[in-house]
Amino acid sequence: MEDVKNFRVVDCEKSNFIKPLKIFYTQNGKDKAWDALKVHDSVVIIIYNSSRDVLVFVKQFRPAVYISRVDTIKQDDGSVTIDHTKFPPSLGITYELCAGIVDKSKPIVEIAQDEVFEECGYKVPLDRFRRVTGYRSGVGTNGSYQNMFYIEVTDDMKVSSGGGNPLEGELIDIVEIPVSEGRKFVMDEAVVKPLGVMFGIQWFYDNIKPELKST
Amino acid sequence: MEDVKNFRVVDCEKSNFIKPLKIFYTQNGKDKAWDALKVHDSVVIIIYNSSRDVLVFVKQFRPAVYISRVDTIKQDDGSVTIDHTKFPPSLGITYELCAGIVDKSKPIVEIAQDEVFEECGYKVPLDRFRRVTGYRSGVGTNGSYQNMFYIEVTDDMKVSSGGGNPLEGELIDIVEIPVSEGRKFVMDEAVVKPLGVMFGIQWFYDNIKPELKST
Repeated sequence: MEDVKNFRVVDCEKSNFIKPLKIFYTQNGKDKAWDALKVHDSVVIIIYNSSRDVLVFVKQFRPAVYISRVDTIKQDDGSVTIDHTKFPPSLGITYELCAGIVDKSKPIVEIAQDEVFEECGYKVPLDRFRRVTGYRSGVGTNGSYQNMFYIEVTDDMKVSSGGGNPLEGELIDIVEIPVSEGRKFVMDEAVVKPLGVMFGIQWFYDNIKPELKST
Repeated sequence: MEDVKNFRVVDCEKSNFIKPLKIFYTQNGKDKAWDALKVHDSVVIIIYNSSRDVLVFVKQFRPAVYISRVDTIKQDDGSVTIDHTKFPPSLGITYELCAGIVDKSKPIVEIAQDEVFEECGYKVPLDRFRRVTGYRSGVGTNGSYQNMFYIEVTDDMKVSSGGGNPLEGELIDIVEIPVSEGRKFVMDEAVVKPLGVMFGIQWFYDNIKPELKST
């Protein structure tokens, strides 16, 4: 996973994935404008494997995180490069909950089920998915909604190695953290991660393992 | 705050605020490309007012959230409009922690101090700011970092009404939630909010008010 090199970053006048919108409106009599992005809604899943008392996460290289943590070298053509020997690609490796975007017209819980299978290799019946909550994953430039689920899995549900959808270029490692170490993991800033995994683990201890609260 | 109307949304070929980058790289021998955004790092502050035993939040209209929750009407010129009588602007009102972006070259804790004053009107000495943690606020298209602080304030620190920086067009209401109701507030999906406020409140109960854990 960490064999990542040949970085080049260019300004992208027109992206097929990031399409800015301009919103004009009047608030309290004052004309305003705000630039926003349309972003897919998403699902994230807290996975607890009770066979081995571990929390299941995914680990992957995130280009956007990597470039925010490195110095870049300007080239004559206006692009920038990165010395990956000085800034190891591990700087861009994040720990996240299993997740996916809502880009199919099927029930959201089925999209969650697909992601658990694709990324982590567990075949889990739909009725095992417990909805935890939902929130806006962004409020500044995008207002997309993220749906959080919880599932308890067992080793006999593991039917493949997971690793993401190769057709989408996904390259995902599965990481298991013993439940006894999850709280430390949440607050360890050396572990690069988004907020979803932090809230999800806190929720797990508060609601599924309240007996561990004081540890 | 909810007097919001005259919505018009247009595609924005080139935004001054949202500037896509294209990142080219090679992972495990395979050439890849990823579109990303440069976004400022940020600060958020959990504010507990011990004079009145309340948590202090900010409430504001977020255009990006609003347009993600409404149906739009296509116009002949390609723009879209929104019937704000059918989709009330309250759909775009969010509850958040006091927050700001890191766009000045001063210590991050001083930026947090400025935001608490600007948005909530409390003058708080720097040594009262306790760093909670930090995390990536996005991992897909942006890898920006968010720093979370905690402060306990008292009514005598309140020196102005707050409400945001009018020069930046900010229009912010302060909302106080009794500590006894904070947990319900976190999990209430009818309250539109980002994840930061949910994690922050959970952290508050786990670390500042552990005696309330089981309520």
